[in-house]
Amino acid sequence: MKARVTIMLKDGVLDPQGEAIRHALSGLGHKGVDAVRQGKVIELDLSATDKAEAEAEVARMCETLLANTVIEKYTVEIA
Amino acid sequence: MKARVTIMLKDGVLDPQGEAIRHALSGLGHKGVDAVRQGKVIELDLSATDKAEAEAEVARMCETLLANTVIEKYTVEIA
Repeated sequence: MKARVTIMLKDGVLDPQGEAIRHALSGLGHKGVDAVRQGKVIELDLSATDKAEAEAEVARMCETLLANTVIEKYTVEIA
Repeated sequence: MKARVTIMLKDGVLDPQGEAIRHALSGLGHKGVDAVRQGKVIELDLSATDKAEAEAEVARMCETLLANTVIEKYTVEIA
């Protein structure tokens, strides 16, 4: 079973990396980009076979290691 | 219009960051994680209103700046 975790900075948290990308895109002539946010995506191959169980396990991974929940939010998709 | 770009290392390209996450998860007692790949996600707010045009523009951004197409693959979703 595969899981995909997407981790983004929470709204309102300054994202200098995203801002740097926006600035670089503008410099390369890509106008019309109003805002950029950068985050992480983590793909996990799990040996679990139960979808609900896998989802709960991945949420625990996010809380303990993958995301800094003070400033980041995460979403889990199980495929 | 919002676009989401997901950038992952191509299959076969060594991913030491993903491997470090797998190792750390294992150390924290999360067994049953067979493989981990880490990538980037970039969310763009675009002023373009035409979906096909926005998609082509974001693909150009990926080719010129966002992704290193020698070792990375990207997917673009327009919402």
